[in-house]
Amino acid sequence: MRILARLGHDHSIHQIGAEHGSYVWDNSLAPALEVESGTAVELECADASGGQLNAQSTSDDVKGLDLTKVNPVTGPVYVKGAKPGDVLAVEILELRPHDWGWTAIIPDFGLLAPEFPEAWLNISRIDAQAKTVEFIPGVTLPLAPFPGTIGVAPVQRGEHPTLVPTKWGGNMDIKHLRAGATLYLPVAVEGALFAVGDTHAAMGDAEVCGTAVEAAMDIAVRLTVQDRRIAYPQYHVPAGQLASAEQSSYQVCTGIGPDLLTAAKEATWGVITHIERTYGRTREEAYAIASVAADLRIHEIVDAPNWVVGAFLPEAIFTEEP
Amino acid sequence: MRILARLGHDHSIHQIGAEHGSYVWDNSLAPALEVESGTAVELECADASGGQLNAQSTSDDVKGLDLTKVNPVTGPVYVKGAKPGDVLAVEILELRPHDWGWTAIIPDFGLLAPEFPEAWLNISRIDAQAKTVEFIPGVTLPLAPFPGTIGVAPVQRGEHPTLVPTKWGGNMDIKHLRAGATLYLPVAVEGALFAVGDTHAAMGDAEVCGTAVEAAMDIAVRLTVQDRRIAYPQYHVPAGQLASAEQSSYQVCTGIGPDLLTAAKEATWGVITHIERTYGRTREEAYAIASVAADLRIHEIVDAPNWVVGAFLPEAIFTEEP
Repeated sequence: MRILARLGHDHSIHQIGAEHGSYVWDNSLAPALEVESGTAVELECADASGGQLNAQSTSDDVKGLDLTKVNPVTGPVYVKGAKPGDVLAVEILELRPHDWGWTAIIPDFGLLAPEFPEAWLNISRIDAQAKTVEFIPGVTLPLAPFPGTIGVAPVQRGEHPTLVPTKWGGNMDIKHLRAGATLYLPVAVEGALFAVGDTHAAMGDAEVCGTAVEAAMDIAVRLTVQDRRIAYPQYHVPAGQLASAEQSSYQVCTGIGPDLLTAAKEATWGVITHIERTYGRTREEAYAIASVAADLRIHEIVDAPNWVVGAFLPEAIFTEEP
Repeated sequence: MRILARLGHDHSIHQIGAEHGSYVWDNSLAPALEVESGTAVELECADASGGQLNAQSTSDDVKGLDLTKVNPVTGPVYVKGAKPGDVLAVEILELRPHDWGWTAIIPDFGLLAPEFPEAWLNISRIDAQAKTVEFIPGVTLPLAPFPGTIGVAPVQRGEHPTLVPTKWGGNMDIKHLRAGATLYLPVAVEGALFAVGDTHAAMGDAEVCGTAVEAAMDIAVRLTVQDRRIAYPQYHVPAGQLASAEQSSYQVCTGIGPDLLTAAKEATWGVITHIERTYGRTREEAYAIASVAADLRIHEIVDAPNWVVGAFLPEAIFTEEP
């Protein structure tokens, strides 16, 4: 918890520990911290299991997960001057992950849940120096940390599970919210009540198996109120960030049909089958690799009645020859 | 029509002119050409209007479009040895576009058709030397040519409109099928009966307004039969190709909700509104810019009941300061 000191924000170090965690969005929660607009804040985020899993956990521990105690967010931070209708700009300054992460197939959860009924767990080693995630032998991912859940309190009263994203942000799982990016959130209530958690060391766009490389992390952000209107969250990606993350060659599998979700499932099955055949991985490994590494894009949604989705598998993650 | 000679395929120049065009996929069509597996073929592709529009056309000409005579494909090419169940590998060798292209908002067509009832047309200048598409003053796109429609004859008898993509390929509008990429198509009938058309000088993933920068083009491909099975089209993107196309900074607008298509529409509205406000463009220009430049990605489809789609607007295309 000393990101900000190193970044030169010594005079304004505001920190919140993971003990200020909540499993719900609730606009009546008392702020853990109150700051002026423009302040940098450092937040300690638990992993998405809220500490239920550790580096020695096995698939049996996934079966025993208490799903009412997952996806905690750290906060909330009250930002002075933020009013309903404003925008809260969240600059992602830095993320510092712990040295391990977990990826699970959780029964009844994920894009292909009916076909993957068994609990499955993998522990990755995160090497911050080498900027890699050693996923399984032969598969190494670039370390690409970001917060899976980041948002503000909703306008609706009561408790809302942190698992569900809304127009106020939350569990959006936007892998592009790396250090250097800025997220813009519509503000629903006085003070915004910002919170963040569910930090990921690596993920593919879509997170098909339902989990990424889930890792506890410290995150530093700067929170600034803006007087303008947006309907949904927006974000800005600096020049070169996408390019530097997408140097690999890709095998792309499409799904084609009248429903985007079904097309996405077919594209994902294409990637799973490709990984099984080409790299000799088990079906569960292939599904998890698709979740932590493959990106889903929409190629067309205008040539009615059929739409096309592509799942991009980066080939550079496979460090052993097929 | 001399791509192949320059590429060094002098001894096997096989060419098909755009007069071999069809507005339907039909597995009973007589081949325009028969080739051995592994042969390079050069095809002349008309623009998607089939010559109904030209560089002097206006919005009025869009109203008069005969929509039964659009999206012609050049072919078919019979590839010897191709059998149902095989894969046809299509290496994209080169594309050489004409020096102009058109982009239209066509009534009753496109992702946001109800909100854009008026015909609209824009003519772009394509500069092959500078590798740019001069879209409108102040908006210049990187020249990034690819075939919007590329496929093989379907297993089903009869005539099938070339506007609709299927598992046999066709109007997939995959902008990543640039020179250097290889497309893999499942083969439905003897000889595969390959055809290609609907060439685009630039497009965003999703093609939201329904048209790209539509431009006539010569395209050279190599057609090779493979004895393996795939369920849907797949393709391979060489290392560095995505990275070189995605150097820009991006403004990303999300859409969030329980239906991917609705979320895609909300994300597209976000981009349109952003372009109107930030760059002072008209709503029609903004919609068309989104279509030719913005990429739609799926951020998550597992945090039920809400999914997140992001529309990526590259900022480098705006050559005037906002």
